[in-house]
Amino acid sequence: MHRAANLFKLFTQASTRRNVFQKVVSSYSRIFQNGYSGSRGLLWLSGAVTVLASTAVLNQRKLSLESAHQPFKVEDNLPSKTQDKEESISLPGALNSRKPSDVVESCFKELLSLGLGERITREEHELETHGSDISFHDKVLPDIVIYPQDTTEVSNILSICNKYKMPVVAYGGATSLEGHILPVRGGVVLDFSNMKRILRVNLQDMDVTVEPGISWNELNDYLRTYGLFFPPDPGAGASIGGMVATSCGGTNAVKYGTMKENVLSLKVVLADGRVIHTRQRVRKSSAGYDLTHLFIGSEGTLGIVTEAVLKLHPIPESHGVAMCYFDEIEDATSAVIDVVRASIDCGRIELMDDLMVKAVNKSEGLHLEEKPVLLFELAGSTHAVNEQMEKILRITKNHKGQNFEYATEPEKREELWRARKDALWSAYSLRPDCELWTTDVCVPVSRLSEMIHYTKEDLRKTKIVAPLIAHAGDGNFHLVMLVKPNDKEEMKMVKAFNDRLVKRALSMEGTCTGEHGIGEGKREYLVTELGKEAVELMRTIKQSFDPNGILNPGKIFMPKENLEN
Amino acid sequence: MHRAANLFKLFTQASTRRNVFQKVVSSYSRIFQNGYSGSRGLLWLSGAVTVLASTAVLNQRKLSLESAHQPFKVEDNLPSKTQDKEESISLPGALNSRKPSDVVESCFKELLSLGLGERITREEHELETHGSDISFHDKVLPDIVIYPQDTTEVSNILSICNKYKMPVVAYGGATSLEGHILPVRGGVVLDFSNMKRILRVNLQDMDVTVEPGISWNELNDYLRTYGLFFPPDPGAGASIGGMVATSCGGTNAVKYGTMKENVLSLKVVLADGRVIHTRQRVRKSSAGYDLTHLFIGSEGTLGIVTEAVLKLHPIPESHGVAMCYFDEIEDATSAVIDVVRASIDCGRIELMDDLMVKAVNKSEGLHLEEKPVLLFELAGSTHAVNEQMEKILRITKNHKGQNFEYATEPEKREELWRARKDALWSAYSLRPDCELWTTDVCVPVSRLSEMIHYTKEDLRKTKIVAPLIAHAGDGNFHLVMLVKPNDKEEMKMVKAFNDRLVKRALSMEGTCTGEHGIGEGKREYLVTELGKEAVELMRTIKQSFDPNGILNPGKIFMPKENLEN
Repeated sequence: MHRAANLFKLFTQASTRRNVFQKVVSSYSRIFQNGYSGSRGLLWLSGAVTVLASTAVLNQRKLSLESAHQPFKVEDNLPSKTQDKEESISLPGALNSRKPSDVVESCFKELLSLGLGERITREEHELETHGSDISFHDKVLPDIVIYPQDTTEVSNILSICNKYKMPVVAYGGATSLEGHILPVRGGVVLDFSNMKRILRVNLQDMDVTVEPGISWNELNDYLRTYGLFFPPDPGAGASIGGMVATSCGGTNAVKYGTMKENVLSLKVVLADGRVIHTRQRVRKSSAGYDLTHLFIGSEGTLGIVTEAVLKLHPIPESHGVAMCYFDEIEDATSAVIDVVRASIDCGRIELMDDLMVKAVNKSEGLHLEEKPVLLFELAGSTHAVNEQMEKILRITKNHKGQNFEYATEPEKREELWRARKDALWSAYSLRPDCELWTTDVCVPVSRLSEMIHYTKEDLRKTKIVAPLIAHAGDGNFHLVMLVKPNDKEEMKMVKAFNDRLVKRALSMEGTCTGEHGIGEGKREYLVTELGKEAVELMRTIKQSFDPNGILNPGKIFMPKENLEN
Repeated sequence: MHRAANLFKLFTQASTRRNVFQKVVSSYSRIFQNGYSGSRGLLWLSGAVTVLASTAVLNQRKLSLESAHQPFKVEDNLPSKTQDKEESISLPGALNSRKPSDVVESCFKELLSLGLGERITREEHELETHGSDISFHDKVLPDIVIYPQDTTEVSNILSICNKYKMPVVAYGGATSLEGHILPVRGGVVLDFSNMKRILRVNLQDMDVTVEPGISWNELNDYLRTYGLFFPPDPGAGASIGGMVATSCGGTNAVKYGTMKENVLSLKVVLADGRVIHTRQRVRKSSAGYDLTHLFIGSEGTLGIVTEAVLKLHPIPESHGVAMCYFDEIEDATSAVIDVVRASIDCGRIELMDDLMVKAVNKSEGLHLEEKPVLLFELAGSTHAVNEQMEKILRITKNHKGQNFEYATEPEKREELWRARKDALWSAYSLRPDCELWTTDVCVPVSRLSEMIHYTKEDLRKTKIVAPLIAHAGDGNFHLVMLVKPNDKEEMKMVKAFNDRLVKRALSMEGTCTGEHGIGEGKREYLVTELGKEAVELMRTIKQSFDPNGILNPGKIFMPKENLEN
């Protein structure tokens, strides 16, 4: 079983480096402290939950699944850019492009000379641990695993790997969802779990310098005593390095932005071992090309981040949470548009559909109305929170919102937010013997209603079970599709549905990925989304930064015929 | 006289394309409506002011100017990156690298075939108009001027220019301060004054698609009726294209960010004529490399922007302005740090030193205390504004702030803000026969006090007259140096002072440019600031995007020996 393999992996990781039970418990407590957010950690979490719950929830539920319907037709009045799709050439077996064993051997010997001691390994269980992730992509083992401990070491490792043209993949929290960390051409995996130091906190400037291995949860645990926090909040356990790599968002993005808005500067090791820093530690700079943003979202294909300077924000003095039901999901999304337009400064605007509420009820024994529901979080001074909440009440009423509930006291807030926190892993209750496949399209907020409408129609036809959660203020939503990876017919149908979903989003000026990244899974959609010319330009950058193509090969770009990036 | 030449240029421009008087008057009215901000338009404005005031203010004031003192010593405990400065090879006469006249002739003939009609010209007065800016850099005439009218035309022009390796420089509001628009190797200037359409406004998504020739003032005039605005506010008349090119800021940056935070997507024509769009019109996307940010701040060296999708914000329902004096500038900057840390959501935090207040008093007949003064602008609901203002009062009192004044009514707000609005061109009153040279360093806010302290000490020694205004919340300040460009000794001294200023900022983890860009003027500092490796990486990008080096050559990068970019 795929999930069983993942759990084994988690345990293996734990036995070598940390205690998995502690990790699970601390994740749980974090989730209840901070609110669960984003979907990147979803599958990891789902694994963790299963560890705790054992197989108790395995009450199988049969669902008849029909084959997929006609692909979504792009309307005539919509952009038809989706037509000039690049011919997608699939990798002819990733293993074929691995380095020959003598090259691996020579490279390994030279790497040994760096004095890495036990931090370099070729042990089977280490290769296994670093050869698969929690997505549906096939397992591929690396040849070597290294746990670097500083920038100089990373630089030396890359110099050697570049010489032997050995692929190098950075490995952080392993919570990405698009196969980002899979060493599809073998090579060296750099596991950053030894590089998670907080190097410097500047309280007056509200910034922090960290190594890439630290997770956002750990960082925020540390910062809490200073009254500061770092807003991007993808899946629990996601590391800063991975968050830079995928340009992640999270539930706080509607107010604080994504990684793009929250990273000041990066130290990066280039493919040939050169070390650069991208920018000074200032709030504003117009000094040359914006290398910082070029590395954010580059998914480990342009350089390896070894330090990041992050913007921090003061923890607001007061919070409020509101919850409001709607008969029609379209009314909920219209309300969101008015809230954003009214300058209401929401920390979070989250939407769940009726199916997601049903899942939460079932899983948690709650008795919420099984209708689309909006959740708002406000922050600021007590008065400001109350004032803004009044406005939200008026707006949601205008859009036929019902049963508005509102709380500022921690316990009551917690209660209201609980449904959203529990949503993701509650999804299992709808089809407990399945795996999750999380989609990530994002459209302009004005199109969100329409997008969800057509998607639901499509879902109804296919009968795929896929509850919906949305970062509604950003126009970004995730369908948590419950699938059986071993059922080829079902996977084919789900894949076809996902294809229609992405193309529907693109036809509405949306993106195939709001916050998860391209990885291995969405490479062909990148071309459909931005066109050949833009992707060719990206490839130009890739080639000039990494002429030997050693950095995370097989990601972002569809391979050309010669299999070079 | 240099200024006279600029005025002549303004008139020339006006006679061909618009009415200068109308431009001056409308600038004035804009300034009084919106608050004058940033310094990019400063010199243009100064010219305009002089047009109105004629030579009435020419009461010459003699100041003894001593030669520069010892260069600033970088303290041992500070980063010493400033030492690995690239050897700066100066251009051996820009004219030497122009294209031979037969190449120009052939290129011109081919361009004529595009049917540009009167929008392509080689008339002397057009070359003059587009051959100098309002900075101190030497005039260099282009060979050809074109007023393109759409993306296809720009694409066709670039294809032809690329074939002949003819330099191409984009020309917008012409308010940049570092020689960005000078065609230092001749070639073609593309004047975007015919491309200033607002193509699309999305009220629900709060974004707008514009052509690059429109100014932010014009855009905001248009948006006002919709209750929306675009925050970046550099000098009046700056065009969106130029603002993208320099990654500008302005007074609103402390709350709303710079261009980096306010551009969603760009349509760009590459050096060879290919057209790309960088991103979908969504609030969040993790789809591939961040090309949008790569073009922001690239100063026309990587591509020519022909469309921009910009984020808009609701105009706040209420405003408040507060003003507070300090005996010591250090107390003012400490107060700023506490205001930012206290989560007070200021729209603007501006600082003027005693000399700037003196200039305003003198020029405007005001009777303000000639002491450092902080100005805050708050926005939001009426109650929120009052609540935040109370907090600012408490904080400034803690830092020995005096004579706190506060207003929410438009007239009183206007009165308080007037000193700041008038500041820049009031600077002339201190030395009316001079030109302005505006510096642009930015340091982490925690170092602002110290930075200003040492700079003032240096100023006292040199006796350069240079009032100070700061976007204090960002750690960015401008010294408005009053200089005589024809006095070689003085210019040498001012240059040496500026050199010490930049290196002092760099030694405090600052940048040579917070919002004006590198242009021609700060190329060597870019290397000092980020190191050879980072600048080489930027050059790699430049070379892969524009192998023939036709796009705005001579900017950002110091020339290599072969004179290629």
